[in-house]
Amino acid sequence: MNRALSIRSRKKDDHAKEASKHTFSISTLRGMQQAELSKKLYKLIKTENHAIGAYETAGRERLSIASQLSDWGESTNDDAVSDISDKIGVILSEIGEQEDLFAQNLEDYRAILKQIRNIESSVQPSRDQKAKISDEIQKLKYKEPSSPKIVTLEQELVRAEAQNLVAEAQLTNITRQKIKEAYDLHFAATIERAEKQIILARYGRRLLNLLDDTPVVPGDVRQPFEHVNEARKVLSDAEHELQTWEPHLEPVHSNAGGLAPNLMPTGATSETASAATEPVATPTPTEKPAAEAQGTHLESATA
Amino acid sequence: MNRALSIRSRKKDDHAKEASKHTFSISTLRGMQQAELSKKLYKLIKTENHAIGAYETAGRERLSIASQLSDWGESTNDDAVSDISDKIGVILSEIGEQEDLFAQNLEDYRAILKQIRNIESSVQPSRDQKAKISDEIQKLKYKEPSSPKIVTLEQELVRAEAQNLVAEAQLTNITRQKIKEAYDLHFAATIERAEKQIILARYGRRLLNLLDDTPVVPGDVRQPFEHVNEARKVLSDAEHELQTWEPHLEPVHSNAGGLAPNLMPTGATSETASAATEPVATPTPTEKPAAEAQGTHLESATA
Repeated sequence: MNRALSIRSRKKDDHAKEASKHTFSISTLRGMQQAELSKKLYKLIKTENHAIGAYETAGRERLSIASQLSDWGESTNDDAVSDISDKIGVILSEIGEQEDLFAQNLEDYRAILKQIRNIESSVQPSRDQKAKISDEIQKLKYKEPSSPKIVTLEQELVRAEAQNLVAEAQLTNITRQKIKEAYDLHFAATIERAEKQIILARYGRRLLNLLDDTPVVPGDVRQPFEHVNEARKVLSDAEHELQTWEPHLEPVHSNAGGLAPNLMPTGATSETASAATEPVATPTPTEKPAAEAQGTHLESATA
Repeated sequence: MNRALSIRSRKKDDHAKEASKHTFSISTLRGMQQAELSKKLYKLIKTENHAIGAYETAGRERLSIASQLSDWGESTNDDAVSDISDKIGVILSEIGEQEDLFAQNLEDYRAILKQIRNIESSVQPSRDQKAKISDEIQKLKYKEPSSPKIVTLEQELVRAEAQNLVAEAQLTNITRQKIKEAYDLHFAATIERAEKQIILARYGRRLLNLLDDTPVVPGDVRQPFEHVNEARKVLSDAEHELQTWEPHLEPVHSNAGGLAPNLMPTGATSETASAATEPVATPTPTEKPAAEAQGTHLESATA
């Protein structure tokens, strides 16, 4: 069996293929300004922005298609097709709104990833500083083994190591907490969009059943559309079910509640922690915008 | 209450707004080549193509994000983050594949809309011909009321009317049948994507619960990751549930089964129908490609 055990290994295969094509390995220089440590997440956050843009486009196009369908139905001069296509259009608009709401929720998840990226960037100088002092000591020991500067540098190194220990603890604390938070939100948003679109699509199918497609012979006149009220009822039922929708999720548990503002466990005042003179700045969480756009199309359609 | 009763009326408001901005009312001349009758659907089919493109992009970006997440996790040198991020990546890849499968299904729905558009285009000449002969008769009656050509034209008009009656019956038969078929497929595809992504997202949330985010103090070493087997089990459970997924849809009923190849009810041989010399060509249905791409990421990840 030559199958990959994770997407990681598969991904490497892809890279190997790319390399053989002699394409540029760098597509933009912007990522290069990022600290080594935060480069990968920086790129992921950028790609997520493209994905979000695609969902926004999909939502916008769906709204446009909904209007066009309704318009087309009217132009057929067939009462039944006109009424049903208009109401299918309402359902499609609402499905489009859900794509947009999903995109907004993904923005919130993306903001959480940025908090990890920010702490990664801020931990980098602490690692660099430690490595730099170590380096200097090694060089000096080789060139001037008796230099008094070595003692000073070794004292500096102890301080740098202490500071770095704090920074690394803050990094792992934030990383684990925020990666859980980010994908908790991502998956919850996926489920929300899915459950709401299922509601809408099911009512959409009921609308279709109100359209009689029995073929007619030339000269036959179609009967007037008899299901106007039923069709309106389907829409208002859909609206009601959408508005009373509530998430039912298996919770993602977190033990990060004990994380103090200094990104250490609450009450932790180890000597190492207090020895650090410059704790890494706490990344500020992004405010979550109230993304409540659901049911507006149905609401106006059934008013 | 000044709320719209349908998206149709809302759409008109939008148009009014656009007009006041003095933008071009024509954005492309291509639609103009279409018969008047099929213009609206022609445009809708084009817009749907953009929507499909957006879903393809979303799927592609999601796959890319999945790889990047796995890669990032590996670079953290944290066993737990590495394992969980790789497996979350597998779930995300599969979610991306579902976007792509959805786009493929939308292509099939779009092909059905094209069948309506095609019959609309083919009915147009029949309407034009009838109108043209009527016109000629009116002009002649005014200019040369005693012309013998009037009788000939009136005979031609009877034939044109008969042909048009057939064409219009074919149009309504195909329109009603295919619009139901198209949105039956569209809504079924929406539900399929939604149900499968719900399965994936729920297992994704279980994976998150295997990552302990209890904060550590500086100098503490994280315990080795103990849930490797559990995480693998979550993925294989997800794979199994995805592979055994089956649609459970309220059926959309059709009475179009009695539609003969001549687009008339089976057995209908009315005089009008047989009087028509040139029946409108039957649009050929598009083959549905077997779109079975589900579960490949999970399969290789749990192999």
